[in-house]
Amino acid sequence: MIKRNLRSAFVAGATLVALAACSSTDTDTVSTTKNEFNGPKNIIMVVADGMGPAYTTAYRNYVDDSKTAIVETVVFDDLLVGNASTYPAQVSGYVTDSAAAATALATGIKSYNGAIGVDVDKQPVQSVMHYAKQKGMRTGLAVTSQIVHATPASYIAHNESRKNYNAIADDFYDVRVNGEFVADVMLGGGTRYFEREDRDVLAQFIDAGYAYADSYNRLASVPTGSNVIGLFAPVALPWVLDDSRKNRLEYLTKQAIRQLENDKGFFLLVEASQVDWAGHANDIASAMAEMHDLALTIEYLKAYVSENPDTLVVLTADHSTGGLTIGARGDYRWTPSFLHKLDASASTMAKDIAGESLPGAYIEKTLGFALTDEEKKHFDDVAKQEESERYTAIKSFLDDKTNTGWTSTGHTGVDVEVFAFGAGYNAFMGQIDNTDIAKKIFSFIDKRPVLSSGIQTNIEMTPSDDKSDTCNFKEDWRCQ
Amino acid sequence: MIKRNLRSAFVAGATLVALAACSSTDTDTVSTTKNEFNGPKNIIMVVADGMGPAYTTAYRNYVDDSKTAIVETVVFDDLLVGNASTYPAQVSGYVTDSAAAATALATGIKSYNGAIGVDVDKQPVQSVMHYAKQKGMRTGLAVTSQIVHATPASYIAHNESRKNYNAIADDFYDVRVNGEFVADVMLGGGTRYFEREDRDVLAQFIDAGYAYADSYNRLASVPTGSNVIGLFAPVALPWVLDDSRKNRLEYLTKQAIRQLENDKGFFLLVEASQVDWAGHANDIASAMAEMHDLALTIEYLKAYVSENPDTLVVLTADHSTGGLTIGARGDYRWTPSFLHKLDASASTMAKDIAGESLPGAYIEKTLGFALTDEEKKHFDDVAKQEESERYTAIKSFLDDKTNTGWTSTGHTGVDVEVFAFGAGYNAFMGQIDNTDIAKKIFSFIDKRPVLSSGIQTNIEMTPSDDKSDTCNFKEDWRCQ
Repeated sequence: MIKRNLRSAFVAGATLVALAACSSTDTDTVSTTKNEFNGPKNIIMVVADGMGPAYTTAYRNYVDDSKTAIVETVVFDDLLVGNASTYPAQVSGYVTDSAAAATALATGIKSYNGAIGVDVDKQPVQSVMHYAKQKGMRTGLAVTSQIVHATPASYIAHNESRKNYNAIADDFYDVRVNGEFVADVMLGGGTRYFEREDRDVLAQFIDAGYAYADSYNRLASVPTGSNVIGLFAPVALPWVLDDSRKNRLEYLTKQAIRQLENDKGFFLLVEASQVDWAGHANDIASAMAEMHDLALTIEYLKAYVSENPDTLVVLTADHSTGGLTIGARGDYRWTPSFLHKLDASASTMAKDIAGESLPGAYIEKTLGFALTDEEKKHFDDVAKQEESERYTAIKSFLDDKTNTGWTSTGHTGVDVEVFAFGAGYNAFMGQIDNTDIAKKIFSFIDKRPVLSSGIQTNIEMTPSDDKSDTCNFKEDWRCQ
Repeated sequence: MIKRNLRSAFVAGATLVALAACSSTDTDTVSTTKNEFNGPKNIIMVVADGMGPAYTTAYRNYVDDSKTAIVETVVFDDLLVGNASTYPAQVSGYVTDSAAAATALATGIKSYNGAIGVDVDKQPVQSVMHYAKQKGMRTGLAVTSQIVHATPASYIAHNESRKNYNAIADDFYDVRVNGEFVADVMLGGGTRYFEREDRDVLAQFIDAGYAYADSYNRLASVPTGSNVIGLFAPVALPWVLDDSRKNRLEYLTKQAIRQLENDKGFFLLVEASQVDWAGHANDIASAMAEMHDLALTIEYLKAYVSENPDTLVVLTADHSTGGLTIGARGDYRWTPSFLHKLDASASTMAKDIAGESLPGAYIEKTLGFALTDEEKKHFDDVAKQEESERYTAIKSFLDDKTNTGWTSTGHTGVDVEVFAFGAGYNAFMGQIDNTDIAKKIFSFIDKRPVLSSGIQTNIEMTPSDDKSDTCNFKEDWRCQ
């Protein structure tokens, strides 16, 4: 175990804040044009993991009402303010992973692929969530992955490798700001990493006064204003197509806000984690369903901001995943209507088809549209294959029906869109870098009148031989 | 020949103007915040054909100085204002071709794929260039395709099919606004369509007082303030990698502006036509080289606007082409440095390699980086194949070296970026539709004090059995 003092990180953070305050013309414009603007009271950062530009256009087409001549606009269309570049530190080239991108969004510095809240020298760096806590705001996160996954982890933990899930879970408890936990509310998956034989971090949180929820209903019954840890799955939540709640991210976001609201304001990280996983899997059905859960979340937040105009919401992606394209193979066509009536994810269909006596009929029923006899026969044959082949067969079938294109099971380097609304949204307009988002948020938090005495906490860095890695970085896309 | 009166088109145009004036909050903001703003004096519309979002990010990486830790920003980064949707009329689905997209950008209406300046009922529609001419502005175009290609054609001609190049060339002469030609300056390729056995449209323009230039040097010698038709190739200009001028679009743009400048202002269409063709060919080397010519053009226009702040420049794409991705095949890498030293286009290499005694050595010298013995041997073998196979082999080699991905030889449906600067640029901010760009330009032209009496010209529509089509729409990507 390497013990490090956060002083260097605090200095780095302070420098960033100073830089942001000095260099951000947009931010200055905000404070100039709106007298006495001391930054938003509440800041909600939404990361749609893997949501490259093709995902938002595809979503607009996916929900288009085909009975009208136009393509109706969607919630994102009212909120677009610009684009962000996503490249990691030079050592990792031009294509980022989710850890380097999350570290950039959380801390304002470029780091290497795999880094969780540390710089290229593996030194811990302060995040906007640390800083929000330091400035007296309540803090939280609501995600659909395990809560120790790269994006939420980078707002709280410091680890040289995203793969060290157990150490990251330990950091959730051990990293403190002025003696306080970094996050007051933590909602997502991951009991496997918190209830371990070697350490029961969940029990520690409960002993420290956190309410614990292991189901959506129990979460709803937690008294308002509590500190909460809600873990609803051993690792990640199910695909939204398979979840009991088809608006699970919107629901978790609402619940988080209910717990976080207070006179001093809050910082909340929301992540639509599984857009990325659908991209890695080249699974267009889940990609669109996860986008829909995100859209419901943003619609809720839009309504929230109209009631609470002192709140800022920023939405962006950390990178694009899968090289998704709307149309492919020389054909000027994209037909998302084939994705409208799925009863289960392609992944679940691939599992369940093996036990069906009439596999073709099962696929027809679960997809929700008529198959030809030849197509049903095809799935009768597919049912005899291995599960991974069955999954590929179902996804390929939908790719052909919709004419969807993919170039990769990994990430691609295209700039991502930035959406912002509420107090101070215009600080994010135009072309920016992902690090600018953290810098601007630091700057907003810095404007707040409540100041405290700095970070006094020691943090622990776990070496890379941590045994908690449950996936192979090269082969399992859930780790990218 | 179907003769139609433009009255209905004029009414449609007027309606659009009215709509734009009523509905454009951004435009209203412009006029509110800048007292007595009567629209920009000069309007320059730049279309980068096929330039989806991945192209601009890729270009930033392509010109990145690898000796520095950061990725330097490029000219586009200062100018981004938002995104535009590009879908065509409902009958053509969600993925547009260049004709429907150009008709949208030129006239403000959605039409079917293949339509040149006509609506879904094949009725002619007024373009912003027609309207600019009507309001007394000088008008012109500068493109790297043949000037009768879809994008420039849609600003001048009216034809039910983009394939009718001869009829479109006739329209360049026959369609008039208040008796005047639509375009005072026309620069690009296409002698094949203007000097024909059945009609010599070029001679007609010369008889009507247009200067003619068939080389860049002759263009430079045309007296300032002339009407000019400059046709520098039988069809399109060469790839920029093969052209004698490595800044051919910047050069044509400068020459066009020199001829167009006048007290009443001008409207200029500029098209980086061959970004799209590189995308169709899945040719990353030409894609980046064409982007560089575009970047030089925009840098020139940025300088021009700083000297002439009453000028508006809008840059967008009509769609994305090829499904380009930065990184592919599960590899988090993109290595554009392999594209920095090409001496010729991949297309030219594919032609020339067949005549080389040492094909591998020729490819090494022309690519400008060292090949292994095995790679050279590979190209010795490639040299014996058909030309199309040789072209594919060279492109695939560069795709592997750079780790570039493609999903299609056609278009894809992702929203495109919008860049704007100069007078009234902020009317284009946020998420808009491609038709909004024409509507806003109509609105700006409409603000101008000089009014004339309306369009009085008859135009001729040519039926689709025109024999001038020089490419097969399904097979030749230069026609898409």
